[in-house]
Amino acid sequence: MSNQLTLYTGISPYSERVEIALLEAHAKFTRYEIDLSNKPGWFQSQVNPAGKIPAITYGGPEVPPDQPSPESVKLNESLVLVEFIADLYPESGILPKDPVLRAKARLFIEFVSTKLLQVFRAGINLQNVDILVQAFEEIQALLPPTGFAVGEFSIADISIGPFLSRLELRLGHDLGPWPAGTGEGPKILALLHQPKLTRIWEYLKDVQARPSFAATFKKVG
Amino acid sequence: MSNQLTLYTGISPYSERVEIALLEAHAKFTRYEIDLSNKPGWFQSQVNPAGKIPAITYGGPEVPPDQPSPESVKLNESLVLVEFIADLYPESGILPKDPVLRAKARLFIEFVSTKLLQVFRAGINLQNVDILVQAFEEIQALLPPTGFAVGEFSIADISIGPFLSRLELRLGHDLGPWPAGTGEGPKILALLHQPKLTRIWEYLKDVQARPSFAATFKKVG
Repeated sequence: MSNQLTLYTGISPYSERVEIALLEAHAKFTRYEIDLSNKPGWFQSQVNPAGKIPAITYGGPEVPPDQPSPESVKLNESLVLVEFIADLYPESGILPKDPVLRAKARLFIEFVSTKLLQVFRAGINLQNVDILVQAFEEIQALLPPTGFAVGEFSIADISIGPFLSRLELRLGHDLGPWPAGTGEGPKILALLHQPKLTRIWEYLKDVQARPSFAATFKKVG
Repeated sequence: MSNQLTLYTGISPYSERVEIALLEAHAKFTRYEIDLSNKPGWFQSQVNPAGKIPAITYGGPEVPPDQPSPESVKLNESLVLVEFIADLYPESGILPKDPVLRAKARLFIEFVSTKLLQVFRAGINLQNVDILVQAFEEIQALLPPTGFAVGEFSIADISIGPFLSRLELRLGHDLGPWPAGTGEGPKILALLHQPKLTRIWEYLKDVQARPSFAATFKKVG
């Protein structure tokens, strides 16, 4: 695998998905952080017209990340990038070989993308915590009694881990769209830790213990 | 490939995606139509809890489609199913072998899923036709000068063809959320046929000429 690969990344669960996949694949890559509060103009014009991270340049000559070559392929969208890395590095094992397990991993991801991230986008607070509890229950119902989402660690776990971890971190630090110091975050977290949701937190601990995850997750709200 | 595969289908562009993929793969499968206006109870309880088509049962014993076996795997979500069929039948060629082309096909699909289908869901009428024209322009910009979305016929073309074809059919027959007989459908269609959108219609003709598409598309509003 001699093609150059540059990842444009930053503090975002979407970017962390791609970083985890690259670490799982033991890929050689250049990591370049984009300051989201002050995006350089060349990033939008020469790497991702949508201006969003994560984005990848692949192939073309070896160049400094802030001088991307017009000859490299430009790719974006975190889930597309995770599948791309799985395709480049089949020996990473993050995409199961069995077509049925692959389909189950992708169904899990589809569920996370629609159900869980929809709840996140709608905004989380004590008033609508029931919707979040329900999403947790439904995701939990997709998990086997032990282990990762489809058995071995896979794209399914990569897709959800950064989001659940960031939620846990932010709630624990009382970060959210509520007035500071109200303790609403820890109250929501306590409700999510109710006994019927034990399995999903066990699962999250397994994901967090994965070295690729631990090396990637940014403990920043 | 000796595992049984049953497709639960009906008049829906989502289902047509999966039928096209199965025909491209020359797959042996049992086709079973679900009457969407009168869904059988066993379908929801034994095949897809969401009650939606398309859905697949895979493996397990050979059984009549209306008596699904608990031993078969149950899968759903049209794009997951299309990738599943591509994985089962790599010789179908609908998933490019080159990881970069795969990623480009999936980016195209992501764009269709968000941009185009969002416009469809918002409802199409003469007042908001500009949004539809813009979506057409943006999709057109992703197409190469000739041929299919990423060169050879692929999952990208499968994902969009049924939706564009149904739109064309419905507008041509003046079917839409406007009062009957106003001719609003043909007016919208005429606006979509403006010279700057020539390429996307050429592309659609190529997709429609594909035998798997022609055999699958249901000319029903």
